[in-house]
Amino acid sequence: MTYDVAIVGSGPAAISAALTLKVHNKSILWFGSSKLSPKVEKSERIANYPGVAMVPGPELNRLYRDQIAQAGLEITERLVTNILASRRGFMLQGGDEIYDARTVLLCTGSVSAKGFPGEERLLGSGVSYCATCDGFLYRGKTIAVFCGSREFEHEVVYLAELAEKVYLFTPYADCGVERANVVVNPGRLKEIAGEDRVSGVVLTDGVEIELSGVFVLRNAVAPGTLLRGLAIEGSDIVVDRHMATNKPGCFAAGDCTGRPYQLAEAVGEGNVAAHSIVEYLAALEK
Amino acid sequence: MTYDVAIVGSGPAAISAALTLKVHNKSILWFGSSKLSPKVEKSERIANYPGVAMVPGPELNRLYRDQIAQAGLEITERLVTNILASRRGFMLQGGDEIYDARTVLLCTGSVSAKGFPGEERLLGSGVSYCATCDGFLYRGKTIAVFCGSREFEHEVVYLAELAEKVYLFTPYADCGVERANVVVNPGRLKEIAGEDRVSGVVLTDGVEIELSGVFVLRNAVAPGTLLRGLAIEGSDIVVDRHMATNKPGCFAAGDCTGRPYQLAEAVGEGNVAAHSIVEYLAALEK
Repeated sequence: MTYDVAIVGSGPAAISAALTLKVHNKSILWFGSSKLSPKVEKSERIANYPGVAMVPGPELNRLYRDQIAQAGLEITERLVTNILASRRGFMLQGGDEIYDARTVLLCTGSVSAKGFPGEERLLGSGVSYCATCDGFLYRGKTIAVFCGSREFEHEVVYLAELAEKVYLFTPYADCGVERANVVVNPGRLKEIAGEDRVSGVVLTDGVEIELSGVFVLRNAVAPGTLLRGLAIEGSDIVVDRHMATNKPGCFAAGDCTGRPYQLAEAVGEGNVAAHSIVEYLAALEK
Repeated sequence: MTYDVAIVGSGPAAISAALTLKVHNKSILWFGSSKLSPKVEKSERIANYPGVAMVPGPELNRLYRDQIAQAGLEITERLVTNILASRRGFMLQGGDEIYDARTVLLCTGSVSAKGFPGEERLLGSGVSYCATCDGFLYRGKTIAVFCGSREFEHEVVYLAELAEKVYLFTPYADCGVERANVVVNPGRLKEIAGEDRVSGVVLTDGVEIELSGVFVLRNAVAPGTLLRGLAIEGSDIVVDRHMATNKPGCFAAGDCTGRPYQLAEAVGEGNVAAHSIVEYLAALEK
């Protein structure tokens, strides 16, 4: 099936867009986390969100979850790692599945835009975002894993079962992975090295480790890496007043489009993007 | 006193901006109605406002009112009829008072942009928006009053006490004004006539009535009339991605900036405008 729209992300912009697209009876494929925005979740109180006075973040996420359920919306818990523009619209890789959608709405939050030096260049040549998809390629080999968040540690364990040796890098303390063949944080990852294929990683202290593959596990893939040719300025997706990107059929909303990183702004942008998508789809059908 | 910002309008965009400006400790002069948005009030249920599921309009306005009070914000119930750019910022006429503000945020809703033919050209030359300010000028004379909403009927009565004869035009049925010297809806008002000064009004059936002044009482004055030289396209105020208009220090948000006329969008735009105003004020202080 080809969906009318694929939404990538599950923060306030995505929620706002999904609710509005649902009202317009569009078929929606929504990638994200049912825990919704970690940024909202960590907010003690939000003072300037109209309609819900001085709301604690977890309470707002609870309201959102109820509202999503009430609207009959569902979130597919897969990380989208690649988006290709096709003739019919877009093909999205979510985990090890491929999905089709006429339009795409990126609500990826304020992801650091660039990744590690070498990451984008060597993606598919030793760099992978998907343990389930590509893990088997590294059976008995030495790999590095950048694990951006504790929630991906089960994927590290899966990779450690396949690989001979794993160098694990985490931006957080108290890593929960304890395995004989996993070296936890031997230094800070600076760069992914290799000519045509990954040959190793370089640490900030200059040490180089030879290995065959690098898995980068993050909450979201930087938008410029996700969709080739997407216009980015600094770390923001470039959009016009209608939240259209430079790629026809691809829209963006929320923190990924830049400052101010604000809840109300994200909600507004999601709404505008949803209307632009409805108009775009109507034009396609003509 | 010179306020940091004057907000014109009291719908969702204005509320969103006011809450955010308050968080930033800006001094706020807020013109509007404590009844808040009539458009929200008339909504049976709103399906796509994130955080408040399937909310009836009057209930949302109640939540807004509580939140405004809780934030210590106050609404000045005066109609702003004129804004002048001055060296220090802006001078706003609200009723018969003049106020100073460094910046202005227009949240005037989707007001019909143009008014009647002749209205803008003859403003201050027989056309007035303010019964209290200019009524005394028409003592013993014949005038026309366009009363846009029932809430202004007490101003019509005030004018009828001064003028000799009043031709009253209302866009609604069941006009509540009954006075010997008031002719209610002798036809539909088409145009305000006069060379340098008002000489009469023309009705849609071609009938012309000679008179000395015309009072136009509306919920809001069209933004292009409010602030001379403000860039308008169709009936929308032209803004950039930061909600800045072509007039330095003047920002706009909500339905007055164009479609989609949506609650979530208005709230987002108000938030963005508030941040732009905070930045603008910071730059002024350098």
